[in-house]
Amino acid sequence: MSRVTVRTPVVRYRDGAFSSRSDTVAGEEPLEIRIGGEPFTTTMRTPGADIELVHGLLHAEGIIASRDDVRSARYCTGVGPDGRNTYNVLEVGLADAAAQARVRPRRQVTTSACGVCGAESIDAITRAGRYPPGRVELAPETIRALPGRLRAQQRTFRTTGGVHAAGLATAGGLVEQVREDVGRHNAMDKVIGAALLADRLPLVDRALVTSSRASFELVQKAVLAGAGMLVAVSAPSSLAVQLAQEAGLTLIGFTSASGFNIYSGAWRVVGATKADESLAGAGSAE
Amino acid sequence: MSRVTVRTPVVRYRDGAFSSRSDTVAGEEPLEIRIGGEPFTTTMRTPGADIELVHGLLHAEGIIASRDDVRSARYCTGVGPDGRNTYNVLEVGLADAAAQARVRPRRQVTTSACGVCGAESIDAITRAGRYPPGRVELAPETIRALPGRLRAQQRTFRTTGGVHAAGLATAGGLVEQVREDVGRHNAMDKVIGAALLADRLPLVDRALVTSSRASFELVQKAVLAGAGMLVAVSAPSSLAVQLAQEAGLTLIGFTSASGFNIYSGAWRVVGATKADESLAGAGSAE
Repeated sequence: MSRVTVRTPVVRYRDGAFSSRSDTVAGEEPLEIRIGGEPFTTTMRTPGADIELVHGLLHAEGIIASRDDVRSARYCTGVGPDGRNTYNVLEVGLADAAAQARVRPRRQVTTSACGVCGAESIDAITRAGRYPPGRVELAPETIRALPGRLRAQQRTFRTTGGVHAAGLATAGGLVEQVREDVGRHNAMDKVIGAALLADRLPLVDRALVTSSRASFELVQKAVLAGAGMLVAVSAPSSLAVQLAQEAGLTLIGFTSASGFNIYSGAWRVVGATKADESLAGAGSAE
Repeated sequence: MSRVTVRTPVVRYRDGAFSSRSDTVAGEEPLEIRIGGEPFTTTMRTPGADIELVHGLLHAEGIIASRDDVRSARYCTGVGPDGRNTYNVLEVGLADAAAQARVRPRRQVTTSACGVCGAESIDAITRAGRYPPGRVELAPETIRALPGRLRAQQRTFRTTGGVHAAGLATAGGLVEQVREDVGRHNAMDKVIGAALLADRLPLVDRALVTSSRASFELVQKAVLAGAGMLVAVSAPSSLAVQLAQEAGLTLIGFTSASGFNIYSGAWRVVGATKADESLAGAGSAE
């Protein structure tokens, strides 16, 4: 049985009648991450690409900057109630033993919908990026094709209807390195972790694409990865817009085949700035 | 300016052309919760119903069981860069000083999509509920009307398209106490917190309704509030199904005007068990 998806019996109600069937739901299991033998955090995730996930998560936490900062990452030998390895505990060793000793546990569970973590107070939420925003520029026709191209590669979504996805888009509109997870932040961590493992950070010539809304946490992850653009299928939040504007990230929301909205950094969308300038002061067509 | 929603300039692309306009996005701001003067956690939320939110969150954390457990809950007098109170720091005093002293900080930021928190390891994720599951029973025609009735009360969604909602449903199908938030777990905490403040826990005769998918965290909150049923608009995860089955919660997903799926506890859906039994072994119509 795949743990990415799980079969479960279900009673379906349609057209006034019940029927019994078997359904597929997206896997959601806890992944405990230990650093130097000490519990660091537990995240609710869809099993799969766990090594990428932990690299992306530790990058977003500011604990690692490149693959060389991780000496080892392997599943612990702990077993579950059935006597088998759960593959739900990952032990990470950092290359810098002194840095490893300074890592403070997050002491909490990150749900399948949780991303930015690690602070006790408001001041500690925003992390400074080490990279300037990437230089990617995309044509509007390319942008509106991205959600469909992402969706086309969402194997788990097709069977469950219940997972998010993230991926990288080239200037030409190719969507690559697609990862899925019940948590949108996990999917993004997997994509960025995979890029980090391939020594492809910062993402100077790639846009990040997400099947979800654009929350503060996703904008922060995009900024920290050095991406120039984040394309979201759904709505952004106020803080996501604010951070994108401050960080110089192009933030695009409500993206579909029929169009999109640019909330920040219109200059990375081919033709947008010119059109915007010509309209400025003349009012909108709406 | 309302902080529930925020106006922002946007460049819109539709039908091959750009236009400038003003758009409304959902507010997302950090709320720092302090207990006895000590930082407990910071959650990313849509401002509004903060007192309900903190009661619901502390209930889900197992820190309070009723309104009497909270002696005081008020905004700190701290000010932001503009010299005004940010209304982003809530100070809670517990009635039991000894219990207050034992509260351990969560030491991390909860994003606008994060709910179950507080544990360092996998074992600590599931919390035992203090209430048996409620006794609510709903007719299928009532269930499929719930998402529409929830949506009809989503004022912020109408302007932003970017917030989740939760509410309580009576056996007759009335949806009440609807709360909205960029985070689905926050919306649920607000609803349960409001019920706690009204001395209406456990939710013996109410179903909980969410505009989102059914994650583990939402099932856990429903179980802890003593609800008998959770109706979700979107998909459940594997762990959500497992916990609902173990806890005796009726879990319904993919709910729309055309139908729904029952993942657990079909006996609380009028007619479902009978239909299911009659079909068992005879195969599904599909």
